[in-house]
Amino acid sequence: MADLPYEDLGFAKPDHHRSLRTGFPEVILGQGKTPENLIQITNTQLEKSDCVLVTKASLTMFESLKKVVKDANYDSTARAITIDRRKGTPSVPGVVITTAGTSDIPIAREATITASLMGCRAEEVFDIGVAGIHRLFAALPTLQAATVIVAIAGMEGALPSVIAGLVKAPVIGVPTSVGYGSNLGGITPLLSMLNGCAPGVAVVNIDNGFGAGHMAALIALSAAREEAT
Amino acid sequence: MADLPYEDLGFAKPDHHRSLRTGFPEVILGQGKTPENLIQITNTQLEKSDCVLVTKASLTMFESLKKVVKDANYDSTARAITIDRRKGTPSVPGVVITTAGTSDIPIAREATITASLMGCRAEEVFDIGVAGIHRLFAALPTLQAATVIVAIAGMEGALPSVIAGLVKAPVIGVPTSVGYGSNLGGITPLLSMLNGCAPGVAVVNIDNGFGAGHMAALIALSAAREEAT
Amino acid sequence: MADLPYEDLGFAKPDHHRSLRTGFPEVILGQGKTPENLIQITNTQLEKSDCVLVTKASLTMFESLKKVVKDANYDSTARAITIDRRKGTPSVPGVVITTAGTSDIPIAREATITASLMGCRAEEVFDIGVAGIHRLFAALPTLQAATVIVAIAGMEGALPSVIAGLVKAPVIGVPTSVGYGSNLGGITPLLSMLNGCAPGVAVVNIDNGFGAGHMAALIALSAAREEAT
Amino acid sequence: MADLPYEDLGFAKPDHHRSLRTGFPEVILGQGKTPENLIQITNTQLEKSDCVLVTKASLTMFESLKKVVKDANYDSTARAITIDRRKGTPSVPGVVITTAGTSDIPIAREATITASLMGCRAEEVFDIGVAGIHRLFAALPTLQAATVIVAIAGMEGALPSVIAGLVKAPVIGVPTSVGYGSNLGGITPLLSMLNGCAPGVAVVNIDNGFGAGHMAALIALSAAREEAT
Amino acid sequence: MADLPYEDLGFAKPDHHRSLRTGFPEVILGQGKTPENLIQITNTQLEKSDCVLVTKASLTMFESLKKVVKDANYDSTARAITIDRRKGTPSVPGVVITTAGTSDIPIAREATITASLMGCRAEEVFDIGVAGIHRLFAALPTLQAATVIVAIAGMEGALPSVIAGLVKAPVIGVPTSVGYGSNLGGITPLLSMLNGCAPGVAVVNIDNGFGAGHMAALIALSAAREEAT
Amino acid sequence: MADLPYEDLGFAKPDHHRSLRTGFPEVILGQGKTPENLIQITNTQLEKSDCVLVTKASLTMFESLKKVVKDANYDSTARAITIDRRKGTPSVPGVVITTAGTSDIPIAREATITASLMGCRAEEVFDIGVAGIHRLFAALPTLQAATVIVAIAGMEGALPSVIAGLVKAPVIGVPTSVGYGSNLGGITPLLSMLNGCAPGVAVVNIDNGFGAGHMAALIALSAAREEAT
Amino acid sequence: MADLPYEDLGFAKPDHHRSLRTGFPEVILGQGKTPENLIQITNTQLEKSDCVLVTKASLTMFESLKKVVKDANYDSTARAITIDRRKGTPSVPGVVITTAGTSDIPIAREATITASLMGCRAEEVFDIGVAGIHRLFAALPTLQAATVIVAIAGMEGALPSVIAGLVKAPVIGVPTSVGYGSNLGGITPLLSMLNGCAPGVAVVNIDNGFGAGHMAALIALSAAREEAT
Amino acid sequence: MADLPYEDLGFAKPDHHRSLRTGFPEVILGQGKTPENLIQITNTQLEKSDCVLVTKASLTMFESLKKVVKDANYDSTARAITIDRRKGTPSVPGVVITTAGTSDIPIAREATITASLMGCRAEEVFDIGVAGIHRLFAALPTLQAATVIVAIAGMEGALPSVIAGLVKAPVIGVPTSVGYGSNLGGITPLLSMLNGCAPGVAVVNIDNGFGAGHMAALIALSAAREEAT
Repeated sequence: MADLPYEDLGFAKPDHHRSLRTGFPEVILGQGKTPENLIQITNTQLEKSDCVLVTKASLTMFESLKKVVKDANYDSTARAITIDRRKGTPSVPGVVITTAGTSDIPIAREATITASLMGCRAEEVFDIGVAGIHRLFAALPTLQAATVIVAIAGMEGALPSVIAGLVKAPVIGVPTSVGYGSNLGGITPLLSMLNGCAPGVAVVNIDNGFGAGHMAALIALSAAREEAT
Repeated sequence: MADLPYEDLGFAKPDHHRSLRTGFPEVILGQGKTPENLIQITNTQLEKSDCVLVTKASLTMFESLKKVVKDANYDSTARAITIDRRKGTPSVPGVVITTAGTSDIPIAREATITASLMGCRAEEVFDIGVAGIHRLFAALPTLQAATVIVAIAGMEGALPSVIAGLVKAPVIGVPTSVGYGSNLGGITPLLSMLNGCAPGVAVVNIDNGFGAGHMAALIALSAAREEAT
Repeated sequence: MADLPYEDLGFAKPDHHRSLRTGFPEVILGQGKTPENLIQITNTQLEKSDCVLVTKASLTMFESLKKVVKDANYDSTARAITIDRRKGTPSVPGVVITTAGTSDIPIAREATITASLMGCRAEEVFDIGVAGIHRLFAALPTLQAATVIVAIAGMEGALPSVIAGLVKAPVIGVPTSVGYGSNLGGITPLLSMLNGCAPGVAVVNIDNGFGAGHMAALIALSAAREEAT
Repeated sequence: MADLPYEDLGFAKPDHHRSLRTGFPEVILGQGKTPENLIQITNTQLEKSDCVLVTKASLTMFESLKKVVKDANYDSTARAITIDRRKGTPSVPGVVITTAGTSDIPIAREATITASLMGCRAEEVFDIGVAGIHRLFAALPTLQAATVIVAIAGMEGALPSVIAGLVKAPVIGVPTSVGYGSNLGGITPLLSMLNGCAPGVAVVNIDNGFGAGHMAALIALSAAREEAT
Repeated sequence: MADLPYEDLGFAKPDHHRSLRTGFPEVILGQGKTPENLIQITNTQLEKSDCVLVTKASLTMFESLKKVVKDANYDSTARAITIDRRKGTPSVPGVVITTAGTSDIPIAREATITASLMGCRAEEVFDIGVAGIHRLFAALPTLQAATVIVAIAGMEGALPSVIAGLVKAPVIGVPTSVGYGSNLGGITPLLSMLNGCAPGVAVVNIDNGFGAGHMAALIALSAAREEAT
Repeated sequence: MADLPYEDLGFAKPDHHRSLRTGFPEVILGQGKTPENLIQITNTQLEKSDCVLVTKASLTMFESLKKVVKDANYDSTARAITIDRRKGTPSVPGVVITTAGTSDIPIAREATITASLMGCRAEEVFDIGVAGIHRLFAALPTLQAATVIVAIAGMEGALPSVIAGLVKAPVIGVPTSVGYGSNLGGITPLLSMLNGCAPGVAVVNIDNGFGAGHMAALIALSAAREEAT
Repeated sequence: MADLPYEDLGFAKPDHHRSLRTGFPEVILGQGKTPENLIQITNTQLEKSDCVLVTKASLTMFESLKKVVKDANYDSTARAITIDRRKGTPSVPGVVITTAGTSDIPIAREATITASLMGCRAEEVFDIGVAGIHRLFAALPTLQAATVIVAIAGMEGALPSVIAGLVKAPVIGVPTSVGYGSNLGGITPLLSMLNGCAPGVAVVNIDNGFGAGHMAALIALSAAREEAT
Repeated sequence: MADLPYEDLGFAKPDHHRSLRTGFPEVILGQGKTPENLIQITNTQLEKSDCVLVTKASLTMFESLKKVVKDANYDSTARAITIDRRKGTPSVPGVVITTAGTSDIPIAREATITASLMGCRAEEVFDIGVAGIHRLFAALPTLQAATVIVAIAGMEGALPSVIAGLVKAPVIGVPTSVGYGSNLGGITPLLSMLNGCAPGVAVVNIDNGFGAGHMAALIALSAAREEAT
């Protein structure tokens, strides 16, 4: 183990071996990094990898990086920086990403971008929360055809449980910090999703669109791998 | 104010005036009372009132009381003692009491008994939680005809929000302590109900079937009063 | 269910059917929306409805919207945008909205505006908290004549319980985030209201004046409907 | 400091000097002690003091101790053991001990016994909670004549705040663990009392009747001392 | 929707349609059910299904049921009752179920039984927690060959994160209530698993072996389905 | 009760009767008030009272008020505005106000100002926390001569307990939000003070110097009153 | 790493290598183990090690084990089983174990036993909490001579901070679950110890005497090792 | 005790004796101090000591101080001001300071600076978190040679437990507030570290690099002292 490759920048040790072990390079959490550190880590990663993802990144971070890395892209809704020098487009289907409301869309977009970089084509269905449950039923054919569903919701967080009662696919719940008062910054939908009465739901951290997209891609890729064999 | 009637038993001051002020005599919380105290309070109340409700009462409490008050009744599901010496049966319609699961039924029964003593006929619809949401839709005609709905749920507590998105009636949410782990003794459905994305829901304490039945009856009686004028 | 009408804007699915189901069009939570999204959602809703309510909206949001929707109004205390193209004025009486202190008034105003848009005339009684309880007794005639009472309080949140011990009407408690230290952003009055010793209280989320006004209007309208039949 | 007197029993170091420093001997918390330890500590204390108080003591503990210390007394409501070999009766007036409900009485009794052993005559007024606030007003003359008031309440814990708005005396609030669900074992009235809108309230731990009685006695004794000079 | 099949027992509405919608019949939570209710629900389900799973069931419950349903089985470690009248044995591979310690085994067994009833063959690897991380490395070949991994841990809950950093398969984390003090009944490993630094982990409720086994089986079955097409 | 005097400003009901009931006029919480509201409330109070206290007030608030009320004063450490048109200086001794560290001084100053306005001369002893406990012992003569002691501390909040073990006077503990991380904005010293092993401590809200000063003054005044009789 | 020695019992994998890596064999947490499992794990460990420690063990567990392992010992205060077949007695000095009260002694004893098995002679000083701080000063010579101090306290948990302000040695704080109400099962002293104003304190889990004794022994042994070189 | 030396600045009482008692002068917490107070306290301390440390200090604070104290230094990563007028360089080896990620470095630097001022040479190993555990194994020789290890981690906080399972040295865990959502500002890694399955870990407050560095230095110095004797 101790001989596996990584780089030692002093302040950081980029894990070039991760891609071999887990199928995807290390993802960079932009939040709290200085632009200088971000540029240095990104450059180091680009020497070994043709694909970089920076999450929770500000526009300012992106603009600093863009000066050095010309082909960097920024999704301002997801607040994600991507650099993708690979050929070809994502091709594995089966990931469906849903939100309860419109305020959950930034987290959904982060999930979509993550899944896309990992080689999965994600279908997005937004604003189907339980307050007007007929909108969810209109999306039922899409949901029932999915290999894996990401269900993103703030407030009471009921969406994953309702969906899981209607489909065969596993559901990844993502609580969001949308709401106020006793929403407790997303703790309420987090607890709600963990206690859903329908099985077939597992949950990631509040506002963690990246984690949900990554998990969904792993599941879809696993299914595709089996198919290929 | 200081001249309003109440009795002074030393250890308790039964509030005989409450019935005039709020339309219903004081209700006795059985939990934590000794049988002796319970008998003394009940007897005092019976001197001024022809109707007594004791909630969260054990079978042992009831058996002690029964020896002294022959017409006391006990509902073992609701764990409620009732004494009702009034003539006539409840007649005000419009209260519908629903549960997400079968484990929520004791709390529902407590609500039904309370509403009934207050003069309301409550319709019960059990086990219509969101894990199998078609069961809820089968009950839609009943729900849409209600004046007020009590929605009782443990686990993720999504029932009140889903119902409120489908009806015109106000919904009283009752979280229950059904569940385990991060259910936190009912805190999770409590928070969930308070953060529901559909308006038209207000919430009472965990496992407080009495409070919900009381609130529902107040609303139904208020509607009936208006009608009568 | 799946055939009920809604619009699909891509990022949002305005629920035009809600008004039929629940008696009132979907309300827009301003918090966290971009001005562009707000304008687009508002315009879509105005095609199907002659009444729009945006809650928790900043002055900036309003000013952007005002340029496009000339008859939009803004209540800076409640931070609410309203557009009302209906004829006639609210007429259903019976809603009384009370506060414990002066800092609770913004939440009260949000409740009043909501009830008003739903066709209810709300009477306001402010600053009658328990620290000087004689002020509450002066308001007793108004409280005892109400069909439903909204009681808004921060700090220890005792107002709903004290009122409910004095009246026949149901009381909707609204905890506010007024206070500091162990007030915990409103969690303390929320818990306090849920544990009130007087029955006849149900509670909505912290600072949720809209939810309380909506609930109160449902109850008043229900009473009025019964009367009309 | 290091030379002040105490005894070293190995497992305990009874602090005989406390009586000199603070005016009252060390009080023994019965909870969690073995009968053997309790007897040994009590005997050691009796060698230096003519007054012992053991709080939160079970009947079994008392019965073991009684065999050895013949003049020990037990109050089964307060769950307190007392041994008092002093001459004369308590004589300092001014302490009033109130409860919101009947279930708070054991804590009140613990406070009364403590104050009594410290030389204060405590007046008890029970069951005057805010659900029937006219009972409180009937007690107003007693409350307004007090030097210090102990206000004991579970559920929403509003009693201290309401009293403090009506009197000149300082109020010691004691939250109790009476209630269920979101009462959280007394945390709710504790928070409520700390956030009361009327100044003149300070709070002790949940169910800590001893601490409240001790604090009240210190205040009453301090007033009496001043008077004497 | 409202026409989908379910049975109405009054106190329960078994959802016979769930098997069609989600691929597996409704699972019965034994906790809190009376033996009578359990027998009635089980019998109703057996009329429509040849497979029943009761989780968190006591030995007493099982013994009552066994008298009526002769082919019921009980796993005392998992506290699970199973009735399986289907022919053939589970055949889909790829599920690996791991625990950090020996005290987590009951939850692991519940997961294994669930996955097995859903047609998946689960491989168990116990006691590989991070305190002696060489034990985990010895299991690496098994982990790297998995389609999906369930990682069960109490205390600090680090196992899912460490595994997810080493494999391509998605990991389902199950916090357990093993521990004491600031373990908070499993809240600590729950929070820990949600904040893991390695992506590819999603989490179910504390002690929810059933939910994890169900989720894992959905993923393995999905992979197998793809393969079959 | 309902006939007691107060003013009705619409948005506020200043309680002119409070001074008679409780011995001190209503205190104004500056936090969250607009300058306009503050001026209006202050002017109304000055018509009936010759003494005003505004707590948690910003410099900006003060500067607005100063333009209208020329004799208003501002203590920038305590963030308190005072207007005192009474003759004579405070004269009742016996209040001692202590802090554990220098960061607790703003809260101490608020307590001192409050006690002073209520007619008590407060002695201040700062920076005697338990990290260097010899500093506390140097202050022992002052502490042992006090009628009542206010002990203000953040971090672990041990000061009230240590003092109470050394003196006869009652101690009012004030937790402050000084600290970081698991200090939880003052919740940690609040809990610590409530659980102190030495009796004779009661606690007010986090950072509530006003409440502590008020409580201390009530106790000192009570002692002085007794003395006068 | 993967080749390091451990045993595979199926349900457990005793880590025989730990002793080499960390200097002490794996310790067995008795809580939650069946007697059968305990016996099997103990026997396996005894094949490779001449020293076993089982913590949080009931008397029943011990009695089962004693039948098989004749030289097992039980400390009923600490609830610890020990088997020690090594020659010679502990010899490294410098560990001092203190408690605030008598109820903390079981945890202290667990620490002493652990340190002793690891080769350290621990000196015990009990009942020196801050309520009677002169008892602590009497122990100052012992404390100032220590290499490392374990400070065990429930309630407000002030002991470690007070000691750390007086000595050069590092202090290991152990919060205990001694107390009631807002003590929160030991969370209050835990938070208090983490926020102590004197540096030189680090904290272990609530009631974790084993962890504290282990940590203290590591420090004392490290000092002794250095000395030896 | 009461005669020990300290200075009385009125608002502060610098504890000049601390250096004698505990081996290191009082450290100044910059957070929340005004520049004026900081300068005054620093100057007072410099009269008695040739070494000053100010933690959590802003650049602005430093710039004000630098004007007066010319030899003050600032580490902008650690946000620490140091003044060191002693001769010679730190010489005691054995402290190793590790971080799980790059965002934990500011806290690590604060620990290093503290240990350095106390006379210890700290070795830093950054970014060895469990997501890529081979990086930790590469550092194993350094870790196994340490006298004491500081392990700093946010997110799930698994680093101290994993390290403690591999070495003989005591480990000081420092949770950091790195993360989002259910990280709860560092509470999650704090709880996680307190519940680690490997013994030999004790924990300091969230983000408390100073406390960890201080504790580590005490341990290393203690070892060195023993060696010297």
